[in-house]
Amino acid sequence: MSTTPDSAVRAYIDVNREAFLGDLAEWLRIPSVSADPARNADVRRSAEWLAAKLAGTGFPVTEIWETPGAPAVFAEWPSGDPRAPTVLVYGHHDVQPADIGDGWDTDPFEPVTRDGRLYARGAADDKGQVFFHTLGVRAHLAATGRSAPAVNLKLLVEGEEESGSPNFPALVAARAGRLACDVAIVSDTGMWAADTPTVCTGMRGLAECQIDLFGPDQDIHSGSFGGAVPNPATEAARLVAALHDADSRVAVPGFYDGVTDLAPRERELFAELPFDENEWLRTAVSYAPLGEAGHSTLERIWARPTAEVNGIYSGYQGPGGKTIIPAEAHLKLSFRLVAGQDPEKVQRLVADWAEDHLPDGIRHRITWLGATRPCLTPLDHPALQSVVRSMARAFGREVRFTREGGSGPAADLQDVLDVPVLFLGISVPSDGWHSVNEKVELDLLLKGVETTAYLWGDLGSSAL
Amino acid sequence: MSTTPDSAVRAYIDVNREAFLGDLAEWLRIPSVSADPARNADVRRSAEWLAAKLAGTGFPVTEIWETPGAPAVFAEWPSGDPRAPTVLVYGHHDVQPADIGDGWDTDPFEPVTRDGRLYARGAADDKGQVFFHTLGVRAHLAATGRSAPAVNLKLLVEGEEESGSPNFPALVAARAGRLACDVAIVSDTGMWAADTPTVCTGMRGLAECQIDLFGPDQDIHSGSFGGAVPNPATEAARLVAALHDADSRVAVPGFYDGVTDLAPRERELFAELPFDENEWLRTAVSYAPLGEAGHSTLERIWARPTAEVNGIYSGYQGPGGKTIIPAEAHLKLSFRLVAGQDPEKVQRLVADWAEDHLPDGIRHRITWLGATRPCLTPLDHPALQSVVRSMARAFGREVRFTREGGSGPAADLQDVLDVPVLFLGISVPSDGWHSVNEKVELDLLLKGVETTAYLWGDLGSSAL
Ligand SMILES: [Zn+2]
Ligand SMILES: [Zn+2]
Repeated sequence: MSTTPDSAVRAYIDVNREAFLGDLAEWLRIPSVSADPARNADVRRSAEWLAAKLAGTGFPVTEIWETPGAPAVFAEWPSGDPRAPTVLVYGHHDVQPADIGDGWDTDPFEPVTRDGRLYARGAADDKGQVFFHTLGVRAHLAATGRSAPAVNLKLLVEGEEESGSPNFPALVAARAGRLACDVAIVSDTGMWAADTPTVCTGMRGLAECQIDLFGPDQDIHSGSFGGAVPNPATEAARLVAALHDADSRVAVPGFYDGVTDLAPRERELFAELPFDENEWLRTAVSYAPLGEAGHSTLERIWARPTAEVNGIYSGYQGPGGKTIIPAEAHLKLSFRLVAGQDPEKVQRLVADWAEDHLPDGIRHRITWLGATRPCLTPLDHPALQSVVRSMARAFGREVRFTREGGSGPAADLQDVLDVPVLFLGISVPSDGWHSVNEKVELDLLLKGVETTAYLWGDLGSSAL
Repeated sequence: MSTTPDSAVRAYIDVNREAFLGDLAEWLRIPSVSADPARNADVRRSAEWLAAKLAGTGFPVTEIWETPGAPAVFAEWPSGDPRAPTVLVYGHHDVQPADIGDGWDTDPFEPVTRDGRLYARGAADDKGQVFFHTLGVRAHLAATGRSAPAVNLKLLVEGEEESGSPNFPALVAARAGRLACDVAIVSDTGMWAADTPTVCTGMRGLAECQIDLFGPDQDIHSGSFGGAVPNPATEAARLVAALHDADSRVAVPGFYDGVTDLAPRERELFAELPFDENEWLRTAVSYAPLGEAGHSTLERIWARPTAEVNGIYSGYQGPGGKTIIPAEAHLKLSFRLVAGQDPEKVQRLVADWAEDHLPDGIRHRITWLGATRPCLTPLDHPALQSVVRSMARAFGREVRFTREGGSGPAADLQDVLDVPVLFLGISVPSDGWHSVNEKVELDLLLKGVETTAYLWGDLGSSAL
C-alpha cells in the first residue's frame, strides 16, 4: 500500500480525532457568551484556554490581546522560509447566548455526540471552525515531515463577534503590523450543503441608519388637525415607499453608481447550484420571493445591494385606536452594499434623498449606526484557487462558489490590512447558528481539518 | 324704563347668577372621572347630584339610566302644549382625568374664580355647558310668565363620554321612545372666539381600523434574506404611502363617491371667519400646513374627509440597529368622514384597496374599531336658524358658522332618533379641554344661559 500525501493526512487525522474532539468539547463547555456581562469571566477563560491549546499545538507565539471589551487571541507560527506567503486566519471564540430553557434538547454547554453530530453552542459558530485549524496544521506537518508550516500562519480569534465586533476595527488597526499578511482566511461561514462543498468569495457591506422625523411638538388630535398638517408617520411611510421603484430596485439616486455587476460566468455558476426556491422559502419562513427585477433569488441575496426597513415606529401602539397625529416617527434602515459601493458615499446619497422627500413642516435627523465595506475576491485569485483545490481534495468533489449576503468583520481585515479575504467554512445551513440545538457534522469538521492540511502546502508553493 | 323680554331674562340671570355659580362649583367638586375605575362612585354621585338638581330646577321627570358602565341622567319637562316641538339636549357629566401634579395652578376639583373665569376640571367640558341649561329654562319661564317651557324639553347627560361612550349607542337605541324628539341640541362643543359667536353645523364621522401585516413566520436576518422576500414593514409603509395622491387627496378608490361638497356660500362663510393660519399652526404645535389641494385649512379640518395614520409599528425599536426583516407590521388608520359618506361603505373600500396593494407573500387582517357617521345640518334648517337668532340676541353680534372636525356621540342621536343635530356651545379654544387649568369664561357661560332662555321661546313658535 503506497502512502500518498493525502492518505498520510487522513491517517494522521484518524489517529488524532478522538483527542481533537475531546479538546473541542472541553472548549465548548466554557459558556463564552460575549453579550452577557455575567459571562465576562467565561469569555476570558475561553481566550486563555485557546491560547494555551494553541501553544500546546506548537504555535511558538500565542498572545492574549486585550480590547476595551473581551480579549482576542493571537497566535503565530512562522514558516522559516523567507519566500513563504503569510496567511491570517480569522475566527471568534465567543458564542451566542443559549439556555436549555430556550428549547434545546440537551444542555447547550454540555456537548453531546449523536448520529455523527456534535451538539453544543459554538459547535459550528465558531469554535468548531476555529478549532479545525489546530489539527489541520499538525496534519500538514505530519504528512509533509516539516517542522514548521509551509506558510507563515497567523491566527486572530476575537471575543466579541456575537456582540457586533465593536472593538475589532480598532484592534486590527492598532495591530496592523503584527497582522500583516498576504491573504486573510475567514473561518466563520459555511458551505452550500454536505454534498456540495463551496467557497464563499465575498460578503456584502452594510450601512445602517436611524431616521427620526418630527412633526407637531406633541401628539395632536386627528379630528381637530388631521388632514391639514403633515403627519410624521405618513411621511416616514412615504420615505420607505420611496426607497424602491416598481421593479424593487433601490430608488435612492446614485445608489447603483459603480456597482460591480455579476459577470455572466458568475451568474452561470450561481444558477448551477442545486437551489430549490421552495426549500429556501421554508428556511426564510416566508411565503413568496420578492426582489430586484431581472435577478434570481441567489443573486439578490448575495450579489445585489438592497435597502431594508428593520424597524418603523410612530404613534399609538396599544389596543384599539387613538385618534392622534403623532409627534414623531422613527425608521431603522439598513443598506446592504456590494463591490463597487462605498458606505460613506451611500450615506451621503441617502441623506440627500431623505432631505428631498420630506415636506415643509417635518424636521428630521439621520443617525448613522456604523458602516461595513463589502468584500469580494475574484474567482481567479491564486489563493482562492488554492482553497478550491484543497477543498476538492478533501471532499472528493467539485467545489462551487457562493457569496455571503450578510456583512462582517472580514471587511476590516480587507480594508485595514489591504489584503484579499477568502472564506473557508464547513458549516451547513442546518447547523442552527444563533438558534437552538446548534451542531456541527463531525464528518465535515474533519474535512475542514483535512482541507487546511492540504491548503498550507498548496499555498506555500503559490505565488501570492 | 320698559321691560323687554330680553331685559327680563337678563334681570333674572343677574339675580340668580351667584346661586347658579355656587351650584356649578358644588358639581365640579365631584371628580367624576369615568376613565378611572377608582372614581366609579364619584361618577355615580355626579349623576345623582345632577338628577336632584334638575328636579329642584323644576323638571317633573328626572331619572338615572343605568348602563353596563357609568349611569346617565335623563330629565324631561313637557310643555303642556300639544303643538310644541320636542327638543333633546345632550351633554355629559363625566370628566377627563386631572391631577394638580399634572401642572394645574390650583386643585382641578376645587373650583376657583379668577379674573372672570371659573377654573376646574369639567368647567367647560362639559359640566358648565350642561349646567347653563338649568338656569336657562328658569329664565325662559320667568321672562315669559310660563309655568312650563314652550318646548317639550328633554335632557340626556351621559357618564362615559370621556371614555369613548361605549354604551351610548345601545342606550339611545334602547330608550329611543323616551328620547323621541324633533331636534337634538348638543352642548359639548365650543364657538370660534369670545367676540365671534358661532354655531357648529356638523361633525365629521369616523372609521378606525388596525391593519396587521404578516410576512415571515418570525423575524429573519436581513443579510441572509433581505432583498429577496417581502418585508411587512415596507409593505405597511407602501400602504400608507398609497393612502394619498400627490394632491393629498385620499387615494382609496371610491372614497369620495357621494361626498357632499361645500356650497360656494359655505366656503365664503368659512373664509369670512377671522382665521390666522400662523396662530392656528401654533395651536396645532405644527410647522406648516399640508392638506388636500384646492381647500383651505378650515375646509380641510371641518368639511373634507381625511385618512390619517395614528400609529405604525414593526420590527426593531430599541437603541442602535438590528438587521432583521420583521415578521409583522401594524397600522392604526382613521378616516374622517363627511356628509354623504357611509362608514360601512368606506370599510369595504379600504378592505378592497388594502387587498389590491399587498404583494404575494404578505398576509393581512383588518380589524375595524368602530364607526361613527358624519352629521350635518343645513344652514337653512329652521331649528338652526332659531339657535342663530337666540345666540345673536344674547351676544349682540352676528352669529357665524363652524363645523367640528372631530366625531362624537351626536351622530348616534342623529342616526337612531332620525333627527337633525345642532351644536350649541359657549366654550372657546383657550378653555383647556382635556388639558391643565381647564376653565370657562363666566361671561360666556351666562351668555349660554341667556341663549337658551331665548331659544325655547323661539323654537316653541317655530314649525319644525
Ligand atoms: Zn460566527
Ligand atoms: Zn366633552
